[in-house]
Parts: sequence; C-alpha cells; structure tokens
Amino acid sequence: MSEHHVVVVGAGFGGLETVRGLAGAPVRITIIDQRNHHLFQPLLYQVATAILATSEVAWPVRYLFRDRPEVKTILATVQGVDTAKREVLLSDGQNVPYDTLVLATGARHAYFGHDEWERYAPGLKTLEDATTIRRRMLTAFELAEREADPARRQALLTFVIIGGGPTGVELAGAIAELAHVTLVKDFRNIDPHRTRVVLIEAGPRILPGFAEDLSAYAHKALEKLGVEVRTGAPVTECAAGHVVFGGETLATGTILWAAGVQASPAAQWLGAEADRAGRVKVEPDLTVPGHPEIFVIGDTAAVAAPDGKPVPGIAPAAKQQGGHVAAVIKARLAGKAAPGPFLYKHSGSLATIGKRAAVIDFGWIKLRGWPAWWIWGIAHIFFLIGTRHRIAVALSWLWIYMTGHRSARLITQGRGREEIGSPAE
Amino acid sequence: MSEHHVVVVGAGFGGLETVRGLAGAPVRITIIDQRNHHLFQPLLYQVATAILATSEVAWPVRYLFRDRPEVKTILATVQGVDTAKREVLLSDGQNVPYDTLVLATGARHAYFGHDEWERYAPGLKTLEDATTIRRRMLTAFELAEREADPARRQALLTFVIIGGGPTGVELAGAIAELAHVTLVKDFRNIDPHRTRVVLIEAGPRILPGFAEDLSAYAHKALEKLGVEVRTGAPVTECAAGHVVFGGETLATGTILWAAGVQASPAAQWLGAEADRAGRVKVEPDLTVPGHPEIFVIGDTAAVAAPDGKPVPGIAPAAKQQGGHVAAVIKARLAGKAAPGPFLYKHSGSLATIGKRAAVIDFGWIKLRGWPAWWIWGIAHIFFLIGTRHRIAVALSWLWIYMTGHRSARLITQGRGREEIGSPAE
Repeated sequence: MSEHHVVVVGAGFGGLETVRGLAGAPVRITIIDQRNHHLFQPLLYQVATAILATSEVAWPVRYLFRDRPEVKTILATVQGVDTAKREVLLSDGQNVPYDTLVLATGARHAYFGHDEWERYAPGLKTLEDATTIRRRMLTAFELAEREADPARRQALLTFVIIGGGPTGVELAGAIAELAHVTLVKDFRNIDPHRTRVVLIEAGPRILPGFAEDLSAYAHKALEKLGVEVRTGAPVTECAAGHVVFGGETLATGTILWAAGVQASPAAQWLGAEADRAGRVKVEPDLTVPGHPEIFVIGDTAAVAAPDGKPVPGIAPAAKQQGGHVAAVIKARLAGKAAPGPFLYKHSGSLATIGKRAAVIDFGWIKLRGWPAWWIWGIAHIFFLIGTRHRIAVALSWLWIYMTGHRSARLITQGRGREEIGSPAE
Repeated sequence: MSEHHVVVVGAGFGGLETVRGLAGAPVRITIIDQRNHHLFQPLLYQVATAILATSEVAWPVRYLFRDRPEVKTILATVQGVDTAKREVLLSDGQNVPYDTLVLATGARHAYFGHDEWERYAPGLKTLEDATTIRRRMLTAFELAEREADPARRQALLTFVIIGGGPTGVELAGAIAELAHVTLVKDFRNIDPHRTRVVLIEAGPRILPGFAEDLSAYAHKALEKLGVEVRTGAPVTECAAGHVVFGGETLATGTILWAAGVQASPAAQWLGAEADRAGRVKVEPDLTVPGHPEIFVIGDTAAVAAPDGKPVPGIAPAAKQQGGHVAAVIKARLAGKAAPGPFLYKHSGSLATIGKRAAVIDFGWIKLRGWPAWWIWGIAHIFFLIGTRHRIAVALSWLWIYMTGHRSARLITQGRGREEIGSPAE
C-alpha cells in the first residue's frame, strides 16, 4: 500500500473530526485509541449523576467509520513516538508506521502537585470515572440511611465538588436535584432534603470563563437549588472523610474533582516543548516545531486564539482543529497552498444549572434561565451522533423533566460500602 | 413499633412479589439485598451481547417501593440467620430482628464439582457478569483484528457456550447475530463471518425442558444463524485458551457458562435440609420444617409441582411463590384459615433464537418462528416495570430489528486485552 498513511491517535472530538475531514482524500487512515468508544464528554456528568446510561454517551469507534474502508481502527495503548523512524510505539510492541501523525490524546485531571488527592477526589473524564462517581454517591445515601451517629450521617450526606468551571457547576446542580427531587420519597431514616452540596472555587467567582453577570446568575441559581457556593476558597487538603478549604475543615464522604486538567504525555513522546499544563506548543498551523508531518490538536495542544487568549479545552475547539488539520493534509497531497494558520472561532460558552436553567455566553448575546436551558439541550442533542442516540437521550431527558425519576441509579462494579470516605480505586 | 415485622431477603422476582402481595396488610416490611437494584434476569443475556444497556434491565429497589412508607430497604449482605433469636445477621454486624422471614436469595452458577472452571468460563447472573462477558467478547474481536497468526486469530474468533438450556440458546443466537450481522462492516483484517459460535450440551438435545419437536426446531434455527450445536458432549475441561468436550479439544478465547446453578446458602443459614443443588426442602406451604415463621421461595427452594416434577427456576415460578407467601402471612394475621399448599401453575416455557425466531411451549399449544418471537417480545416488555423501561427496551429492539446495529458495544471497567483467554476476575 503506497498510499499516504495518516495515523490519528485519540478518538475524541479532534481525532474524529480529522478523520471526517479526510473523507475522499487519497489516504489510508489508522485510528488508535486505548478505548473502543468515542465519548461525548459534555454529557458525562449526567452519567455520573444517574440521568443517562453509559451507552447513551458513547459509540464504538470502528462502528462510526464502518462505511469508510480506508479507515482502520486499532484498540491499543500508545507509549511513545519514534519521530526519526516515523513510527507510533504501542505498549504491546506492534508499532505503527506513519506518513502523517495527528496526536489528539486529550487531558486528564490535574491536582496541582497534589497527586495524592486523586485517591480521595476522583475526577470525571472516562465512562469508568462516571460509574465510579455514581456508585460512590448512591452508596453514600445508602450508608447514611443506616448510620445511627448524626455527625457521621451528615458527613455521608455532604457532597463536595472542587472547581467552579462548567463541569463543577453542572455536577453540583445535578447532585442537588438528585438529592432534593429524585430521592425524596425513597428513604425512611434520612431526609434527603438535608443533603449538603458544596461547590468550592478557589477564584473570586464561579464560571470564570463567562461574563460576570452570568457568573452571578449561575451562583444564585445554584443556591436556589440548595447548593452552597464557596468562592475565594482554595482547597488545601483532600483526605479520607474530609476536605480543608479556606481554613475550614468539612467532614464529607464524597469529594469530586473538577478543578483542572493536565494534558496527555504527547509532549514527552515527541520531546517537544510544553506549557505548564503539559500541552505541546504547536506552530500556528498546529504542527510540531521541526516536524511538519506531526500535528497536535485538542486538549493536548497549546494554541492562541486570534484575540491572544489560549484556545479553550472544549469540544468545538478540538473539532475546529481537527477540520483544520484535515484541510492542511489534503492541500499538501493535492500540491496546493497551505490553508494558512489555524484561526479559532469561539462559538460560545454553555453551562447548565440543574434541569431548568442554564447560562450561555455567545459574546455578542448572553442568555440565562429556561431559554438558555432549551438551547443548551437542543444543541447537545444535535451534536450527538446518530438518530438512535438522539432519541434515547431526548427520551431520558423528557422523562426526568416530567417525573423527576432517574433510571440509571445503579450501584455496580464496585467494592460498595467499604469505599466511601476511603481512597478511590 | 409493635406491628408485625416481615423481613424479605432478596429483591428478585420472588421477594418483590411477596412485598407487593403484602400491600395493605398490617405489617412493616424490610427488604434486604446486597445490590441496590432489582434485575430483570430474563433479558440479562441482551446486556451481555450489547443489545440493551444495563439501566434498561434494572431498577433501584427502594425506588420501586417509594410510595409504600411501611417498606424499608436495606443495602447489606446477609451472612446468617439466628432462628432462636429471630434475627437476620448482616455482615456489618447490624442484625435485623423479624417476626416472619422470607428468604428469596436466588442461585449462582454451579460447576459440578469443578469450581476452578469459573475463572475460565464466567456465568451470567448479575449486571457485572453481563458487562464482563460483553467486554471479553468485544475485546476478543479487537484482538483477533490485530492477530497475525491464523490459528490464534481463529481461536479468538471462537466463542463457546456451555449448556443448552434457554440461557445458552439465547446467548448463542445473540452472539452469532452480533458476529454475522452487527459487526460485518466494522473490521478490516478479520472477516466476522468466520466467527465460530459453538453451543455445547451434555444431554441428547438442547432445550430439554421443551417438547422434542421444539428442541429440534431450535437446533435447526441456531444452525441457520451459524451456531454449531454439539449435543451429547459433556465438557471435561475448561482452561485458559481451550475447552475439552466429548473427547475433543477446541481452542477458544471465550468460554461462557450456562450449564447449571447452585442455590444461595440459605439452607446453611437455617441448618435446614437441602437437595443436591443446595435448595431448601420446604413444606407444601413453602415454610421451613419446624419454622412456620420462615419461608423460602424461588431458586433457593426445592418444591414439587402438582405433576410431581420440581418447580422450575424461572421468574413466573418465583412470582407465584411470592404471591402465595403474602397470602399465607395475610391469612395468619387476619386469623383466617391458611390458603393451603402452594400449587405451581406452569404458564409456559420460552426461548428466543436470535431476533427473528423463538420457541414457546405452553403445553397445550406449541409455537415457533416469528409468531413466537413476537409473543416472546411483547410478553417481556409487558413484564418490565414501568413505562420508561418499556419504551426504552421497545426502542432498542425496534432499532436493532431495523438496522442490525447495537448501541451498547462498550468495553468498560476491565483489564481489557490482558484478560482474554485468561481467568475471569
């Protein structure tokens, strides 16, 4: 096979968009991912809070490209890149040679030099993270129901979310509604209304990426749902059974981390320069300095938007970069001029607060309340892949909207009771 | 609380039906289960084969009785019964006193004295079993896609199901369709049509509980789907990478066990007499000999039907027994005469073969082919709990029927590649 071989590592939004953009180009493509599914991360918090099923936010990667015979999918873990030999090194020793390489390997949680906190404050990046959080939350209610000691019971009913960005805000709202709406009739010894949901943000306001008035609105909307919002309160300790923030110690059985991310180790694979978050400092056309045949995109790349600010780590940004990379590759193969530098176009920032409010910052217009919620919902259903998933998610939302009941309240796969207040696996 | 306290251990079909039957009775009820959900086991094979999502066949137990304030749900593991003190002993030390006790604790797989086979041939009883089987099957295809050695590739593409009862037949049909319909366009190096699905039955025919002509029909229908049916072939060895049956050794990456069950240890808790499968030999009214205050029902009880045959371990039988127990308890509390011995009424035997055929043996009438499939499908949707689940399952089936695509093809929660052909966790 003498055709130009494009290897895409990572089947997230950036990787998939690259492959989509290369449709019809004279290339063969290999997608490598360590999971068999693409994950719709913007709705992952709904899996963690028992609103959606795991299969409603994930698609088998090879299924997505079943009608593209030139696209091959490999389930494997990458452990390095031999840029001299132009080979991707897999952990099982079966290396994959490339002509053009696209690294779209995403990010994981970052604990700002406190990696030991990860055991007590799990983050939310994978389906397993979501089912782990779901299990720990639901188990905390079960243990509280059987706990005779009032102080321990209240600790079990205290849920702490660290990080006031969109993920933290959405988690806090969904947990508050789980406790104050979904579960109210289900227990006999505890009153789920007494659940405390505490959202901690180190900075002066939540949703710092949004306009100030939207932040203030979100703050109030969360408080209306029963969330205690604590800004300007940096966390100084996460441990088994408590968290310390702003000098205060709070007893809790469940700490969730939504405070920061660290890029995947692509920079180390390449020996390339990275910023503090580990993201590769790419050229304006998204290639790696000195390696025009290697692109890095999405959460793994440090790129500046036209306004000088860094391109945010959100799905639309990764998709735009994937499209740009496909255009560059196609232009090169056709012998045409390169399409120029990547220009990020910010389409807007969105976050929901529970099931009736949201904030949207388009820049030129700002929306809040239920109109924003509907735009958020319709946009997310639109961006899901395939009619099947759209119907399923719309049905799940409609049902919860009407009845308040969540169908995915499953405690599975875990050590169960033993793990609450103890390190996460 | 001086009210009569009924403790029900196990939230399966028998336990739930007992609680339902006691609605309005002057009792308080405690349900104890080691899982937080009731599981619709008849459709569990569809979770294992990526047709349904986990949340489509499971309901939180406490949610089912949210409108019955006299019903309390406890998530806990029972480790014994103190019949003298009338207390259920929990593994965490918080014992639960009872006036009447109903043990409906079900069964697990039995390996006929070969417990070491469980590591190589996992069975299907819990949601975790189903996601484990799903992961192992899908991973086998992924590994086969990357395997250069033809013999090893064919072993990875060989799926062995041990046991020709309804579960084995349904698993075999669903795996054959997964390979020969769902996956055909998704791989580049392997041809999923070359997948071997081998169903092994020690006895002379599959579906021994059905009429002979229905067994013969099911045998042919499976072969039409590409399943190799091997009857009269007892398994003599399960190991990492192969199975030995009828003197033949077959190399395989995936062995599934559907050959037999062993009752839960209720007999040991009670010091009661049990049959070979560990089931408590109960009185005709389902009480334990010498303990009129203790009932044992469902897969944990050995009961004879009016025709002298043992009552089968199926959902309708457990439900009938649960209903009977509730009637006995109510009669006692009302000071009325006992309703007499439990009389099992067999409503029929059902099994599906893929998505277009089924066999139903009502005794007085026998059905096969697509009419049987439709009756099977409608009956199962009817018996699901709640509109939400009925719509979701109907939608999933409709979609697969029309497109052949399964939405729950997720490899999650596992060690992944390393575990194929090696012991199950």
